[in-house]
Amino acid sequence: MKPLKVAMLGCGVVGTEVATRILGNAADLEARIGAPLEISAVAVRDAGKDRPGIPSELLTTDTAAAIEGADIVVELMGGHEPARELILTALRSGASVVTANKALLASDYSELLAAAEDAEVRLEHEAAVAGAIPIIRPVVNSLAGDRITRVLGIVNGTTNYILDQMEKEGWDFDHALATAQELGYAEADPTADIGGHDAAAKAAILASLAFHTRVSIDDVHVEGITGVTADMVETASAQGFTIKLLAICETIEDSPAGPGVSARVYPALLPKDHALASVGGAFNAVFVEAEAAGSLMFYGQGAGGAPTASAVLGDIVSTARRKVLGGTGQARRSIGNRLPVLPISAIRTRYQITFDVFDRPGVLAQISQVFAEEGTSIELMQQTQLEPTDDDAPQRAKLVIATHSGTDAALAKTVERAVALDAVNELKSVLRIEGH
Amino acid sequence: MKPLKVAMLGCGVVGTEVATRILGNAADLEARIGAPLEISAVAVRDAGKDRPGIPSELLTTDTAAAIEGADIVVELMGGHEPARELILTALRSGASVVTANKALLASDYSELLAAAEDAEVRLEHEAAVAGAIPIIRPVVNSLAGDRITRVLGIVNGTTNYILDQMEKEGWDFDHALATAQELGYAEADPTADIGGHDAAAKAAILASLAFHTRVSIDDVHVEGITGVTADMVETASAQGFTIKLLAICETIEDSPAGPGVSARVYPALLPKDHALASVGGAFNAVFVEAEAAGSLMFYGQGAGGAPTASAVLGDIVSTARRKVLGGTGQARRSIGNRLPVLPISAIRTRYQITFDVFDRPGVLAQISQVFAEEGTSIELMQQTQLEPTDDDAPQRAKLVIATHSGTDAALAKTVERAVALDAVNELKSVLRIEGH
Repeated sequence: MKPLKVAMLGCGVVGTEVATRILGNAADLEARIGAPLEISAVAVRDAGKDRPGIPSELLTTDTAAAIEGADIVVELMGGHEPARELILTALRSGASVVTANKALLASDYSELLAAAEDAEVRLEHEAAVAGAIPIIRPVVNSLAGDRITRVLGIVNGTTNYILDQMEKEGWDFDHALATAQELGYAEADPTADIGGHDAAAKAAILASLAFHTRVSIDDVHVEGITGVTADMVETASAQGFTIKLLAICETIEDSPAGPGVSARVYPALLPKDHALASVGGAFNAVFVEAEAAGSLMFYGQGAGGAPTASAVLGDIVSTARRKVLGGTGQARRSIGNRLPVLPISAIRTRYQITFDVFDRPGVLAQISQVFAEEGTSIELMQQTQLEPTDDDAPQRAKLVIATHSGTDAALAKTVERAVALDAVNELKSVLRIEGH
Repeated sequence: MKPLKVAMLGCGVVGTEVATRILGNAADLEARIGAPLEISAVAVRDAGKDRPGIPSELLTTDTAAAIEGADIVVELMGGHEPARELILTALRSGASVVTANKALLASDYSELLAAAEDAEVRLEHEAAVAGAIPIIRPVVNSLAGDRITRVLGIVNGTTNYILDQMEKEGWDFDHALATAQELGYAEADPTADIGGHDAAAKAAILASLAFHTRVSIDDVHVEGITGVTADMVETASAQGFTIKLLAICETIEDSPAGPGVSARVYPALLPKDHALASVGGAFNAVFVEAEAAGSLMFYGQGAGGAPTASAVLGDIVSTARRKVLGGTGQARRSIGNRLPVLPISAIRTRYQITFDVFDRPGVLAQISQVFAEEGTSIELMQQTQLEPTDDDAPQRAKLVIATHSGTDAALAKTVERAVALDAVNELKSVLRIEGH
């Protein structure tokens, strides 16, 4: 059988790993595919730079020439343009595309998928969410006959490492971040990770696939972990919770805004006995709830050259197998506008609120009164005296309140009113409780 | 687009769930597939029996007529014959087949797969291993470009429930089994589960797919859990281990018998901090190690009507989507005779051996001497005095020895020689230590 031509766009850590594995495992891959894989070109910015393991004659700076005649185009450049244009060109030329570009998919997924369907070719992107963990294929295929109701994911290793170290070592955020940077778990500019934007891109892709509904990154409510303090981690732990940056995708039948889907990212309190709570270090895990399947969890390495390359290679091999069999088209993913995307205010959650209050008679009554008036039911209230800062200062206490479930809007309004009370010196933190 | 005809063979708990979901979610499924799914027949043993939710005109006892003209045949009868013949008939007639029949696949996988490839149709069986957990698709597709080195699975919920209860409640085996039977987790005849045969069937399928090598159930070394005592569970726990019935599939480069694959099932000691150790109750989990991907874990419900139906439906939908796109053929699974299957004697493992010894000077020296002569390195030795049964009886002790890694043959020989020593009153147990 004649070789299948693979053109690679971009050749950083992941690209080099992919290319050297294709070149080094040629016989195995041919046996698995039914035809040999041949790297026809590797498009890079600087073709003069030596890349160990990759024959220099494959290197080119001409992306258009690289795409031409390719059966499979592997896009590992990242970023929005020119990646988007190149992928569209490749799809229209009849090549299937494998990409790990989560940022692009999170904004332009429907357009790219439509282009693939029109051209009857495939667009695969297992590596774009949770690295080596096979999560796209289970959601798209294995659960295709089921109804997914919720996806809870730890999909950013950097923030998980930081939060994990804060809990285990008692470090503050800055120290944990600096250590993550030293160890290479966090980039020099960590904004995309710690701001939650990387997780939000993945949430958009997961929600689109799980709920057959167009969800772009702009639809995802995002809060990062920069506001998480050592004190918050300690309070959480004392109450049996661990703080995790969660990507949450849910279908909601009965929100005040009607039925819809929610996609959101924020640091949340997770009960320590939840399956996701023990996911430590830079690992990723995705917890899926489906009507018939029940709870499923997928766990593994969410980043890194080799794990990401494994996911890219899996996509290349399954696309190549399909080419060999003849049916090259994109399996239907039916992403439409099945349900509206709900605003954060309409979703139901639980709050853990920490106040710094003046420790005098009637304070709890006053605060409880506000909660009652707003219809926010209290599950737990815990008050601890604070050490006085000086003798003349009024005695203060730390008051932690965990609510029962309510809409985010109602809970936020309750907090806003409580903060305005004389009895409250300061609002220390608000965290949502998830995973029940 | 014209409807795709689905014929069902067998309609027990899983079949009923599959049929009612196809009938009840018709519009959703059509949107996901691109064509309507139509149940053309449901072949059952007794067509007169009323089956709520399934129109009686679909029921038939004529399996041949049910298969004829079907696009997809769903085999949920179980057992060897007539399931095997019917699947072969269906494949040869040009229908794709979805099955959950692990016993059949474990013995006749290569033949069935070859028939599917010859007929250019698909044979899908996600439900045959670990129920709702998508494990087949990740192994076959997601990791298709990687090299899987090891699969460790808890793939039988009944035995996991029993061992879990023995550890948590301190129950003995018989009481835990009886409770499992009362709760419906274990069958009236529990042999296939507690004897390890059900897990062995799954190990054969997983090893075949993971290592592209024909492994049948007869190649799998099987030990069940009937010999596990409350005392063994307690000893394990005290040393930081939990006992799990593991299905282990490995590639081994350097066994005494040369390179090969191993597929085996036995109760093993797993360190309590291993990801599989916390898989409790009737849940299943599969831990996969691959060269590039690193460690991955898949967790969920391994049995039950709805979870199994979810996996069957996923297979039906992805097969149907493929039909709509035209390329109906079976993606290449390339199961050949790439590597020999190694006997248990050639695989490397670690032993935890518990002896009942006479407590007198020189006993440890004598036993250590045997281990040294056999080249079996001791990692840990722990001796505890036993309460004397009567005043005249010689003082005895419980001696627990954990070895470093060695071939199973060498470890077994060491135990055999040690047992023959005068100092040893009785061999209490031998368990392998896995997960390092």
